[in-house]
Amino acid sequence: MLTVWSSILFSQTDEAVIKSIYNTALTQGKSYEWLDYLSNNIGGRLSGSLNAERAVEWGESALKELGLDNVWLQPVMVPKWIRGAKEYAYVASASGQTTPVNICALGGSVATPALGLKSEIVEVKNFEELQQLGESAIKGKIVFYNRPMQADLIDTFEAYSGCVNQRYKGAVEASKFGAVGIIVRSMSLKIDDLPHTGSMTYDDLPVSKRIPSAAISTKDADLLSHMLSIDTSIQFYFKQNCKQLADVKSYNVIGEITGTQYPNDYIIVGGHLDSWDLGDGSHDDGAGIVQSMEVLHLFKSLNIKPKHSIRVVMFMNEENGLRGANAYAEAAKQKGETHVVSLESDAGGFTPRGFSFDCTQKTFDKVLSWQDLFKPYFIHYFEKGHAGADVGPLKTNTNATIGLRPDSQRYFDHHHAASDTFDAVNKRELELGGASMAALVYLFDKYGI
Amino acid sequence: MLTVWSSILFSQTDEAVIKSIYNTALTQGKSYEWLDYLSNNIGGRLSGSLNAERAVEWGESALKELGLDNVWLQPVMVPKWIRGAKEYAYVASASGQTTPVNICALGGSVATPALGLKSEIVEVKNFEELQQLGESAIKGKIVFYNRPMQADLIDTFEAYSGCVNQRYKGAVEASKFGAVGIIVRSMSLKIDDLPHTGSMTYDDLPVSKRIPSAAISTKDADLLSHMLSIDTSIQFYFKQNCKQLADVKSYNVIGEITGTQYPNDYIIVGGHLDSWDLGDGSHDDGAGIVQSMEVLHLFKSLNIKPKHSIRVVMFMNEENGLRGANAYAEAAKQKGETHVVSLESDAGGFTPRGFSFDCTQKTFDKVLSWQDLFKPYFIHYFEKGHAGADVGPLKTNTNATIGLRPDSQRYFDHHHAASDTFDAVNKRELELGGASMAALVYLFDKYGI
Repeated sequence: MLTVWSSILFSQTDEAVIKSIYNTALTQGKSYEWLDYLSNNIGGRLSGSLNAERAVEWGESALKELGLDNVWLQPVMVPKWIRGAKEYAYVASASGQTTPVNICALGGSVATPALGLKSEIVEVKNFEELQQLGESAIKGKIVFYNRPMQADLIDTFEAYSGCVNQRYKGAVEASKFGAVGIIVRSMSLKIDDLPHTGSMTYDDLPVSKRIPSAAISTKDADLLSHMLSIDTSIQFYFKQNCKQLADVKSYNVIGEITGTQYPNDYIIVGGHLDSWDLGDGSHDDGAGIVQSMEVLHLFKSLNIKPKHSIRVVMFMNEENGLRGANAYAEAAKQKGETHVVSLESDAGGFTPRGFSFDCTQKTFDKVLSWQDLFKPYFIHYFEKGHAGADVGPLKTNTNATIGLRPDSQRYFDHHHAASDTFDAVNKRELELGGASMAALVYLFDKYGI
Repeated sequence: MLTVWSSILFSQTDEAVIKSIYNTALTQGKSYEWLDYLSNNIGGRLSGSLNAERAVEWGESALKELGLDNVWLQPVMVPKWIRGAKEYAYVASASGQTTPVNICALGGSVATPALGLKSEIVEVKNFEELQQLGESAIKGKIVFYNRPMQADLIDTFEAYSGCVNQRYKGAVEASKFGAVGIIVRSMSLKIDDLPHTGSMTYDDLPVSKRIPSAAISTKDADLLSHMLSIDTSIQFYFKQNCKQLADVKSYNVIGEITGTQYPNDYIIVGGHLDSWDLGDGSHDDGAGIVQSMEVLHLFKSLNIKPKHSIRVVMFMNEENGLRGANAYAEAAKQKGETHVVSLESDAGGFTPRGFSFDCTQKTFDKVLSWQDLFKPYFIHYFEKGHAGADVGPLKTNTNATIGLRPDSQRYFDHHHAASDTFDAVNKRELELGGASMAALVYLFDKYGI
C-alpha cells in the first residue's frame, strides 16, 4: 500500500509542477516580448552581420537579467556572406517581351557578372534528368530546378527533405555539365510571390566553375515552367550582387543554472541566434531562442532547483555553417562536460505537438511512460527520429538529443522568406512550446535518462 | 488463421482508402478555392442580409456542380438584425478630455438614442459583483463587464465558455439594476484594437428595459479599466445604430449522395453558412462549410459509394437564432429520416487535432478502435464531449453527434471580429480538416455506430 500511495503522490507532484509550468508560461511568460524585441528591434541577423552582433549583445544582456548562475559568450569564427543590392530577374520571350519574376540569391552563391547573366533555360525535376540531358543540352544555359515539395506528405519537413538537394547541391551538379547558372523553385508549399533563400554549396569546385544560384518564387516557377512548355527558346536574365567575405568573429551566447547534485552533467536547451536576412527570423529561429530562454525563466520563476546544470545555448551560424554548434560541442568535449540531454527548438513557433528523440530505447521507454503527463496540453507526438542540426555534434551512444516538434503546416510558408516575421507568430502557440520544453526538461532532470 | 488474415486485409483497405482521401484533399481538394469565393466574392453574410442570399445561391450552385444525387433549399424564416453605420465611442475625463475607443454593437442589441448615450461607468467582473453593487451603484450608469478569457486554459473554447455569459446575458442582468447600457470586454485572448461581436439576449425584458450593448476591444478594455482605477467619475459615450427588423425568408442548403444499402439512414456533415458581418466569416464558419462540401467531393472523386446516404447541410442562422438547425431537425423528424451520425465543423479552419463525440459508450469504443488509422495524420484527440450547436437538435439517445476539433490557439483572435478573413486561413490546415472528416465518415459508413 505504501508503494502505491507514494507513487500516486509522486505523480501528483509532477502533474502539479507541470501545470504550474504551463500556467506561468501562459500568464507571465517572457518569450513573446523577447521575440518582439529580437524581431522588431534587431531583425534579420545573418552570421557575421551587424545585426548578428546586436543579437549577441541582446542575448547576453537578457540572460543576465534572468539572474542565472553563469552567463558568457563563447567565441567562434563564422562565415560572412552578404546579399548586396536586391536581385532582379526577368523572362524574355523570343519577341523580346520581358516578364519580371521574383528571385533571391541562395546563401553562399556568387554574384552574376555586373551586367547580369542572360541565357536560355533548361527545366529539370531532379539530378537524373540533368544527367540524361547531358552537357550538349546544358552547356552555356541556366538550369531551372522545379521539383515542388510534395503536398500529400503530412509532415512538411519530409516534403522539404525531398526537395532541398536541388537548392543545396544544384549548382555543383549543373556546373559539371557546363551550366552558367541555376534557378531553384522555392522550398514552399504555398503558391505566392516570395522567393525563399537557404544555404547551398559549391563543394570543391574551382572558383571558375562556381555559378550564380538563385531561388524563384513558387508562382513564378509555375509561370516559367508554363512559358517553357510553350517556347523553349525563351531566355532568363538575372542579376545578383552577393559576395562571400572573410570569416569574422562571433559568439554562442550561453547561460546556466548550476545543478545541485550533478553540476557537471548538463541538460541544455537551445536554438540558433542567426537567421536569414529576408525576414526578421521570427520563426527561424527567434522562436527557438526565446523558448529556450523561457525554460530557464520558468525554472527561476517557479524556484525549481535542478539536480543537473540546465543551460541555454544560443547557437551562432546554424544557417550557413553550423560553426557555433561545432565549436560548442568541441569545447564541451575538451572541458569534459557530460551532455545528458540536448533539446533543440528549430522548427517554428507554432503549436507544439511533441518531440522527436534520438536516444536509447531505454531512455525512450522512460519518455513514453511520461506521455499522460502531457495529455492535458495536447502534446501527443513522441517518436524516435532526428533531433536537430545544432545538437547533432553533441550526440553520443548514451545521451539523448531531442527536437521540439511544432505543428508543421505553416512553417514553409515563412521559412527563409520575407514572410518570416513577428506577426506570423501567435503568442500562445509560442508560449506552449516553451512550456512543453520546460516540462520535459523538468522530468529529465528529476528522473534522468 | 483465416480471421486474422482477413482482419489484416480489412485494415489495410481502410488504411489505403484513408490515405487516398488525404492525398486527394491535399492535391486536388476544392475547399480552399471555394472558401476564397465565399470569403472574397461574397464576404460577411449575416442572416437575412443580401450577402446571405448570395451565399445560398452560391452554395446551391456549387453543390450542383458536384454531381450529387439531390440538391435542394430548405426554407426557414430567420431574424434580420442590421448594424447600420459604424459605431463610435469615447471615454471622457473629468476635465472633458476625450479618448476614442474601439467598440461594436453586440448582435441583437438596440441602438443608442440618436445622439448617443453618455454616462458614468461601473466595472464588474461577474454577475455576483453586479448584485453586490446593487441598484444604488448601477442605476443610470453603463455597466462595463471586464472578465478576461483565462489564458491558462489550454483549450481556448473553455476560456470562452467561462466568459461568454457577460456578452449573452449581461444586458438582462444589468438592466435589472437600472443600467442604461453595457460595454463588454471582447472575447479574445489577444490584446489588440479589434472589438468582437456576438449574440446577446434580452430574454423577456419589456422594450423599455432593453439597453444598448456593445463589445470593446481588449486593449481598450484594459485602458478603460486603468482609467477607472484612477478616476471613477469618468464618463463613457457611445453611439450605435443597429436595428432588429422583421424576420425574412432564408434557406438551409442541402445536398446528398443516396446510400446504396440504407438510403433513409443519414450521415450528415455540416457547418453554418451565415456569419457575423465584421469580417468575411472565413473561419466562422466558411471553413466548416467548405470542409463539409469537400467530404462529398472526396467521396465523388474517389468513387466511394456509401451504404448510408451522405448529406452536406449548410445551416442558416447559427449565429443569432439557430433557426436553420431547428428547422432541419424538425423536417428530418417529420420525414422519418434516421440521422445516424451528424458531424459538424464550426471551430475554425485550423490544423485538425481530432473530434469530440456525443454518443453512446458502444459507439465511442468503436471510434477508439479506429485511432491508429488516424495516427499518420496527427489526429490524436478522441474525446467524449459537446459536438456543436447546429447538430444539437438532431441528438437522440442512440445516434452520434460529433464536432471536428481543430487546434484552438488562434481561433479567438479572429472569432466574430474584422480579422476573421481569408488570409488567416492556411490552405493545408483547411484541407486536412476536410480530409479528417471524410475519413471518419467513411469509417462510420462502413462499420456503423
